[in-house]
Amino acid sequence: MSSRVLIKNAALVTMDENRGVIDQGNLLVEDGIIKKISTGPDEIPGDVKVISGEGKVVIPGLINLHNHAAMTLFRSYADDYPLMEWLTKKIFPAEAKLTEKDVYWGTSLALLEMIRGGTTTFVDMYYFMEQTARACQEGGIRAMLSQVFIGAENSSRGFNTLEDAVKFIEDWQDQDNRLIQAILGPHALYTCPPDFLERVLKETEHLNTIIHIHLSESRDEVEQSLESHGKTPVALLDDLGMFERQVIAGHCVHLNDEDVQILSEKGVGISHNPCSNLKLGNGIAPLQKLLENNACVGLGTDGAASNNNLDMFEEIKLCSLLQKGILADPTVIPARTAFELATRGGARALGMDGSIGILKEGAMADLAVIDFNKPHLQPHNDPVANLVYSASANDVETVMVDGKILYEQGEFLTLDEEKIYHEAQECAKRLRQ
Amino acid sequence: MSSRVLIKNAALVTMDENRGVIDQGNLLVEDGIIKKISTGPDEIPGDVKVISGEGKVVIPGLINLHNHAAMTLFRSYADDYPLMEWLTKKIFPAEAKLTEKDVYWGTSLALLEMIRGGTTTFVDMYYFMEQTARACQEGGIRAMLSQVFIGAENSSRGFNTLEDAVKFIEDWQDQDNRLIQAILGPHALYTCPPDFLERVLKETEHLNTIIHIHLSESRDEVEQSLESHGKTPVALLDDLGMFERQVIAGHCVHLNDEDVQILSEKGVGISHNPCSNLKLGNGIAPLQKLLENNACVGLGTDGAASNNNLDMFEEIKLCSLLQKGILADPTVIPARTAFELATRGGARALGMDGSIGILKEGAMADLAVIDFNKPHLQPHNDPVANLVYSASANDVETVMVDGKILYEQGEFLTLDEEKIYHEAQECAKRLRQ
Repeated sequence: MSSRVLIKNAALVTMDENRGVIDQGNLLVEDGIIKKISTGPDEIPGDVKVISGEGKVVIPGLINLHNHAAMTLFRSYADDYPLMEWLTKKIFPAEAKLTEKDVYWGTSLALLEMIRGGTTTFVDMYYFMEQTARACQEGGIRAMLSQVFIGAENSSRGFNTLEDAVKFIEDWQDQDNRLIQAILGPHALYTCPPDFLERVLKETEHLNTIIHIHLSESRDEVEQSLESHGKTPVALLDDLGMFERQVIAGHCVHLNDEDVQILSEKGVGISHNPCSNLKLGNGIAPLQKLLENNACVGLGTDGAASNNNLDMFEEIKLCSLLQKGILADPTVIPARTAFELATRGGARALGMDGSIGILKEGAMADLAVIDFNKPHLQPHNDPVANLVYSASANDVETVMVDGKILYEQGEFLTLDEEKIYHEAQECAKRLRQ
Repeated sequence: MSSRVLIKNAALVTMDENRGVIDQGNLLVEDGIIKKISTGPDEIPGDVKVISGEGKVVIPGLINLHNHAAMTLFRSYADDYPLMEWLTKKIFPAEAKLTEKDVYWGTSLALLEMIRGGTTTFVDMYYFMEQTARACQEGGIRAMLSQVFIGAENSSRGFNTLEDAVKFIEDWQDQDNRLIQAILGPHALYTCPPDFLERVLKETEHLNTIIHIHLSESRDEVEQSLESHGKTPVALLDDLGMFERQVIAGHCVHLNDEDVQILSEKGVGISHNPCSNLKLGNGIAPLQKLLENNACVGLGTDGAASNNNLDMFEEIKLCSLLQKGILADPTVIPARTAFELATRGGARALGMDGSIGILKEGAMADLAVIDFNKPHLQPHNDPVANLVYSASANDVETVMVDGKILYEQGEFLTLDEEKIYHEAQECAKRLRQ
């Protein structure tokens, strides 16, 4: 396959404040990089695959900041349960049966869904992470993967230890891999007590890696922390010095004003997961307030068991609509802001602003082409509003990561769709028994 | 085309409390009616079109209780504005330019979107309704159409009068049409003062038609009513005797306990429109409380200008997630309840329970086939949860109304997709100038 791709005469939603939306532009990809963005007729270089952009919109690949990819196996397996019953009677017992094979096929199914939906980078936390990494390598997606661990051993859930997690990171740092980054995943404050987290921070200082953690997801979590430690989870992690490192904090729903200030000042990368937060009854995060305080926010789906899909377009629409609705103000989180969260917001949270989540010369060629020849994307009044308020994952036609096309016109070029459906189905059948 | 269709070996989400979900069933359609539902191998009658249901799920066609179909022309035309500015500076001036042609092409675009998304019945309110009716006849959808009118003349918006609306109904009652029903559309209490509404009720008594009205959509509307009349809009309409007639009330967001009781006791058909209510900053309707009081509730999208799509699957998911989130209870509005709102709930509101919104022998053959061979609809843990929490309009493969296939495998059989895109684009271009 040619390493050069030219998308011709497409609308380009660059997310670059200098370029804005280019109504009709050409985008040339070479060696994994966006080599040139131009307007008007342009000469076509030799040895290049040309994609006609007529009626199409090119966007930076979407960035999913919080996922448990292999949990696609538990999609629609146990919905509408009270939270503790859901966890203890349904999810934990099923997860106790998980094998490496399950994680491999569950992740592969998640990759089909994410790639097909325009997601080009995701952050994950789960078990058997080397299997997740293997699936990601095959799929060709960009991923930050954390082997989840907790402070106390709990054999029935088969949690990893800190040592397992460190080994996973060291193994991957030894490899020369452009796309996969192993990061640190302490599960949450309520499963990792403060003294354990102190040890974690000390023992992983040399690793210089992103930390991925659940934070202030439920009201109970915050109340427990106030009761046990006299502090909110955010204030406590700040005290421990965690926010001197680069952190992706999943959820951040129940925040007081001081929490908002800490998260904003320390530049903590917040994964706002509106679907999951509603579905599990956790509520609505103060997104507008976070943005007013210049917090670093991106979007995530959480795992498919609590969403139940990995459609970033749903998160984009919902994050805007929810704030409008609860603040009784239709002007908050306008379309461009919502779309920015899923692109540059995610990139900033990962310390990769300028490299991903943006279409500009020199940035990595992670992008998606959306076909606007669909009833719900007509007429062409405003492409960004159409993307935010009307599009869905299903509208994505072509997806490229690092200059390589992974999905095109309904076909997966790196993954075996039918085999993955079959194997994931077999895994799910065994797990739910 | 054969008037008989057999869908073989599909999962049937019947919404019939006796049949539930049939994992593998056959559904025979004859003369516009569901003739037979069976399981196991069944003999195939002669002269029948067979649809293989392998990996597919058949659902009753979805019912959209509140729409302004032609407003697809204003999709993504003016988002994120304050409500009054949006109306007075953007929507009203654009609507003042509307012609019959615009309504025809705008409606046609809405029909493409609704049909493709599994909606087989919708309730509409707009101008130039004879054009909407013409488009619906061509498209083959089931529709209840109201020519909107207000109490005071307002020439700049070109509202119709009561007389226009009555004439529209009488014209259509004269026709023998199975699919299109003309109904009465007084816009809202704040545009139709009580004395005018009294006259409306009196003068239309002989018409025996459904009334379609906006009700308690915004906080301002309720406060204004309390100030002017000392009563909530719901209590006032009840006093006027409107609820002795069959009513579809759009929105019903701001309700006190007495309002909930009145709406429930009088069996008012409520169109719950969660997307639009959030997007315009109106808030979240007390859906769970309404259902606890056995209110008659269905779902609607509202017009595309305030949504911005007509995807009923979004409303289904959102109505459940919102209540879980704001009530901090993941058990409320479980998947089956949410799906029922969009099917039997809508049918009940229209006085058509048993005829539409259900798959049973003798019911009208209004249905959709969903292809589950998609990453986000795998594995097959629970088809109803998959439909509610993971599916979108784009997953619909085949749509039938009154036994006639309108959409199949990406092709519209009654509407000219490309021509409609072109004409709607031209209309939108002129209107936004």
